[in-house]
Amino acid sequence: MTYTLSQISKTLNLDFNGNDIEIDGIHTLAEASSSQLSFFNDAKYAFQLPKTKAGAVLIDSEHAKLLPVSTIALITDEPYLKLAYASKLFAHTLSTVSEAPKMGSDCDIDESVRFGSGVVLGENVTILAGCYLGDHVSVGSNTILHPNVTLYHGTKIGRNCIIHSGTVIGCDGYGFAHTKQGEHVKIYQNGNVVVEDDVEIGANCTVDRAVFGSTVIRRGTKLDNLIQIAHNCDIGEHTLCAAQVGLAGSTKLGRNVVMGGQSATAGHLEVGDFSTIAGKGGVTKSLEGGKTYAGFPAVEIKVWRKMQAALMRLVKNR
Amino acid sequence: MTYTLSQISKTLNLDFNGNDIEIDGIHTLAEASSSQLSFFNDAKYAFQLPKTKAGAVLIDSEHAKLLPVSTIALITDEPYLKLAYASKLFAHTLSTVSEAPKMGSDCDIDESVRFGSGVVLGENVTILAGCYLGDHVSVGSNTILHPNVTLYHGTKIGRNCIIHSGTVIGCDGYGFAHTKQGEHVKIYQNGNVVVEDDVEIGANCTVDRAVFGSTVIRRGTKLDNLIQIAHNCDIGEHTLCAAQVGLAGSTKLGRNVVMGGQSATAGHLEVGDFSTIAGKGGVTKSLEGGKTYAGFPAVEIKVWRKMQAALMRLVKNR
Amino acid sequence: MTYTLSQISKTLNLDFNGNDIEIDGIHTLAEASSSQLSFFNDAKYAFQLPKTKAGAVLIDSEHAKLLPVSTIALITDEPYLKLAYASKLFAHTLSTVSEAPKMGSDCDIDESVRFGSGVVLGENVTILAGCYLGDHVSVGSNTILHPNVTLYHGTKIGRNCIIHSGTVIGCDGYGFAHTKQGEHVKIYQNGNVVVEDDVEIGANCTVDRAVFGSTVIRRGTKLDNLIQIAHNCDIGEHTLCAAQVGLAGSTKLGRNVVMGGQSATAGHLEVGDFSTIAGKGGVTKSLEGGKTYAGFPAVEIKVWRKMQAALMRLVKNR
Repeated sequence: MTYTLSQISKTLNLDFNGNDIEIDGIHTLAEASSSQLSFFNDAKYAFQLPKTKAGAVLIDSEHAKLLPVSTIALITDEPYLKLAYASKLFAHTLSTVSEAPKMGSDCDIDESVRFGSGVVLGENVTILAGCYLGDHVSVGSNTILHPNVTLYHGTKIGRNCIIHSGTVIGCDGYGFAHTKQGEHVKIYQNGNVVVEDDVEIGANCTVDRAVFGSTVIRRGTKLDNLIQIAHNCDIGEHTLCAAQVGLAGSTKLGRNVVMGGQSATAGHLEVGDFSTIAGKGGVTKSLEGGKTYAGFPAVEIKVWRKMQAALMRLVKNR
Repeated sequence: MTYTLSQISKTLNLDFNGNDIEIDGIHTLAEASSSQLSFFNDAKYAFQLPKTKAGAVLIDSEHAKLLPVSTIALITDEPYLKLAYASKLFAHTLSTVSEAPKMGSDCDIDESVRFGSGVVLGENVTILAGCYLGDHVSVGSNTILHPNVTLYHGTKIGRNCIIHSGTVIGCDGYGFAHTKQGEHVKIYQNGNVVVEDDVEIGANCTVDRAVFGSTVIRRGTKLDNLIQIAHNCDIGEHTLCAAQVGLAGSTKLGRNVVMGGQSATAGHLEVGDFSTIAGKGGVTKSLEGGKTYAGFPAVEIKVWRKMQAALMRLVKNR
Repeated sequence: MTYTLSQISKTLNLDFNGNDIEIDGIHTLAEASSSQLSFFNDAKYAFQLPKTKAGAVLIDSEHAKLLPVSTIALITDEPYLKLAYASKLFAHTLSTVSEAPKMGSDCDIDESVRFGSGVVLGENVTILAGCYLGDHVSVGSNTILHPNVTLYHGTKIGRNCIIHSGTVIGCDGYGFAHTKQGEHVKIYQNGNVVVEDDVEIGANCTVDRAVFGSTVIRRGTKLDNLIQIAHNCDIGEHTLCAAQVGLAGSTKLGRNVVMGGQSATAGHLEVGDFSTIAGKGGVTKSLEGGKTYAGFPAVEIKVWRKMQAALMRLVKNR
């Protein structure tokens, strides 16, 4: 989808009187191209303004001065709310239109499986009953989808993967702007999910599509059941997540990380390579790799054990 | 379904020798009408006995004296267990009988979608592959059901809602009476779920139907993935629940409450308007609105932070 | 599936020069029969070596001396990794081949339900839309499967059970061996799940099949929604698990155990009969029956309450 900036400005009720340009998407200040719209609503990213390549930016009048001359400012006091309204313009149109997928040899597809348009399957793909593959989904060779898996539009699954029943990949990330009246306005999630080769995902997991760009699960990672992966997470190679783990948005796990059952992260943080988070642990800030952490807020497990022992002594002394 | 009280008494093996009446349902002492059966099994509700409008009440002989003359007492030492047996009489009969729904203009319904009887859809409703809508479900205009959503009988979904894949709405609440031998007898959940307008519910959530009356999710509320809403919860307008939140039965959240990821409530309590519960928090009693809480049991977040700091000092002092 | 031991050795790149035998499966040292392969990778099970009835064992050269003369040693430094490769030989072959089930009278099966081969249903079984029953699944009389339930191959469901929507039974347990390069090699889960009579399982639960033998949910147990039961768990009769409970592998719950919402166990432990684990509790070691526990690590609830009170005093004293 492409709109002129003047069309977008009109939809958002914003002033615009410049040389019009074509806009074909939305992205962050750091990632946006000259045909994309971006937004600025957090002072900590001000340093990115002079360097942005965005065609246009939703921004307050004060910070607009920091933009390069090649970037058009759309002035607003509510850039994040305007972003939300703009995101709808680029949302995928859902429909029941179905088309036979392109597929390699030796695929075994149950007759009840439903496809959107433009689906591509490799060789020897097995898709059992009740699965749904939305528009432009791709699935690599030798991958197995167990019954009742849902892959939203644009999801890319690698080779030699196993996806267990009830798992949903590519559902919308949880992102909203808020009006002054306390209403929540959906930020349409126009990114996707990429699952690399040799990944296994358990049953009834949820992997959210990115708001921009991709949520990524890297090669060789294995997820257990009932796991939540929020939008824009990046899960390193050969990482293990036990059941009921929850990763908040933009969590970056390194390679060979181990997350114990029911552990979680707070989002926008990084867990280093070869770290272990014990079961029920809650990570609230970035953690150095190669160590084992426990508790909430998560600390090194030896510290956590001392905390438990200290608590127990307090009780015993009374 | 309607039964005479004498039929019900016979089924429950209870004595009844009075003027027979017709009973068409079961409800609480406070809510039951003169054509409904109620029950009394908790002394803290004794104050409701003189005021009940119930046609009949399952009750012990001592408390029966407190009932108004217009209410018939069915005397039993095990009123809750008898309630469980009675609830089965009013349970919905499940079947595969299917009927084309009534629908407004511009609906887009995948051919694999299965309907019970008496389903009503508004205009411009989109229902993708593999969804199931049970008997007498209604879905408001412009609402989208992503693939593989299940709506049990009697579920009411409002306008402009989005329900993501794998979510189950209207499944049975978790309610059992217990025999003296330690067996659990199902209390059939004969209420329903009402989802108001502008609600978004993430993937693989579960929203239980009410035992009596309705579980309600009010206007503008947004739920993330893998969330459990138990029977008879009432979630206020514009409330936000992050992934893996769990609300126990009869929790009442106010408006614009924010529940962090993996946080939970213990049920039969109230969280005030504009409260925030931090991630992993566990609410064990009703909380005043407008504040931020954390920890388990949840306390004000500034207190929780002091507790964590105190624990850390205990460790460092050794 | 049956292989000669020489075939298996060749596949695993192991030396074998003895009297060849036929191998038809894999099991633990304690349970393997003379036609099964076993493995030894944990010194704490060395006491089982002299008594094993296994036909052959993957084992290091030192411990191999402890095996009875009737058992063949397949010498390897990486017995667990070799086990993983061997497990694939015995994995069930997935396919979309479908066959009408054998069924008793008065069954009500939605036309969208998909069956593998060799499915057997009792009388008066109700299966609603979108369910999948894999090869050799059996379902007892009077059992109800709500829409979109998935039963993997070999799952056995008893009589008078209720399985709610989106629940997945028999998905693979989470078991991997690890290469020296940090890659994870799937241990194919060749056991199954057995659900006894009078069990109710809520919506969007996941019950993993056993790696060997069966994961068992015993008579009269009731599970709420979004619960994870890992491979080889054994859940006693009349046990109750509230929503979002997670049981790690080989957990044994006694009879009439109560697990509160979001509580969990660490696996390979036993919770005694008539125990209660409070909500959010985390069980890290075996617990004596008849008591109530809370916290993480779970302790008796009265101790946990004292710990919370002590923490609160620390804060108030400052």
